[in-house]
Amino acid sequence: MTLTLTTYDWVPQMPRGLVRDLRVRWACEELGRPYSVETVPLRDRGAAHQAAQPFHQVPFIRDGDRVLFESGAILLHLAEGTHLLPEDRRPEITQWLIAALNSVETWLMAYFLARVVDDDDQAAERRAPLVTQRLAQLDAVLAQRDWIAGPDFTVADLMLADVSRQAQRFGLLGPHAHVADHLARATARRAFARAFDDHMAHWAAADAAGSPA
Amino acid sequence: MTLTLTTYDWVPQMPRGLVRDLRVRWACEELGRPYSVETVPLRDRGAAHQAAQPFHQVPFIRDGDRVLFESGAILLHLAEGTHLLPEDRRPEITQWLIAALNSVETWLMAYFLARVVDDDDQAAERRAPLVTQRLAQLDAVLAQRDWIAGPDFTVADLMLADVSRQAQRFGLLGPHAHVADHLARATARRAFARAFDDHMAHWAAADAAGSPA
Repeated sequence: MTLTLTTYDWVPQMPRGLVRDLRVRWACEELGRPYSVETVPLRDRGAAHQAAQPFHQVPFIRDGDRVLFESGAILLHLAEGTHLLPEDRRPEITQWLIAALNSVETWLMAYFLARVVDDDDQAAERRAPLVTQRLAQLDAVLAQRDWIAGPDFTVADLMLADVSRQAQRFGLLGPHAHVADHLARATARRAFARAFDDHMAHWAAADAAGSPA
Repeated sequence: MTLTLTTYDWVPQMPRGLVRDLRVRWACEELGRPYSVETVPLRDRGAAHQAAQPFHQVPFIRDGDRVLFESGAILLHLAEGTHLLPEDRRPEITQWLIAALNSVETWLMAYFLARVVDDDDQAAERRAPLVTQRLAQLDAVLAQRDWIAGPDFTVADLMLADVSRQAQRFGLLGPHAHVADHLARATARRAFARAFDDHMAHWAAADAAGSPA
């Protein structure tokens, strides 16, 4: 079935490497699933974009007749019936995938808003302990096992690692060696390298094409 | 299979009605699924709590041999194979359930931190437009249909309504009539009323038992 991934036409340097299309590219590489890339304008987000992604964000996919957004839901959908989501561990894998988004990334976003959007160091300092607490709790779990939801790498590890990458970008991973080790294990996979290279090449091509700088 | 829901032994007035065990109670009522309630201390969160819920939060459930946390994952697990999660719409239902958490609740949490935790009106004002934008985008979707992920009420509506209840508590739902209507439709269900009454009775019983005030 033809799979299309939609991301932005261009983004500034700062979010490169963190735009959430990377998660979808990574899953496709893990699954050996070919996909083509389409774009929507970052600067002028129109009605067609909103029809596919009501919050005017990326990524979204078209998989046959199905249009889906939310990176977590896209990953669960693509992983369905594969080794990235073994049926007998579906609840635990779903639990950890949602935990990465909802119990970790939520607090990273609050930190991000204070530190980057507001550029308010005091507010960021107030937000940091919540993130640090969650990372410490995650660290205690990852001290006991290599992968978050069972013996093997699953779609939950993929999501968790991509969330940890944000914490790493903010310099918050330092004291959490087991989280950092999990991230290193996950991103050492060839599928990640291929996805990351393609993700970065997409922005470089946009620069070369003279997209809005 | 025996189902146990764990929530806190007691909480102050403010979060009553919003503690996330309510989502699980509501799903159980929709499904006619009996459950028993156990508690962990709010004030002194121990190792047994952390073993079941690594982030020291509630709710978590025990369903037979399975212990699960994250309200989103618990709802998807309980709904599996039922009318709350029709198999052929699993991707869309999962998409909207995660969207409620990740594209709406995340920004409500950032608002909550500024307004309630920091008690900082200026910071809350900076956070409000992000929440309002997401609610307006949701409003445009709900202008077109009664339920968020298809013709009938699903577990995605349950999650979305419970997230909308937080926005309502903060007085942010006003301009978003279709979101408010969706919330009214969802919470008019008998299953919600039963779950809400049991949720509130739990805190009242804790007060009566002389729990930490």
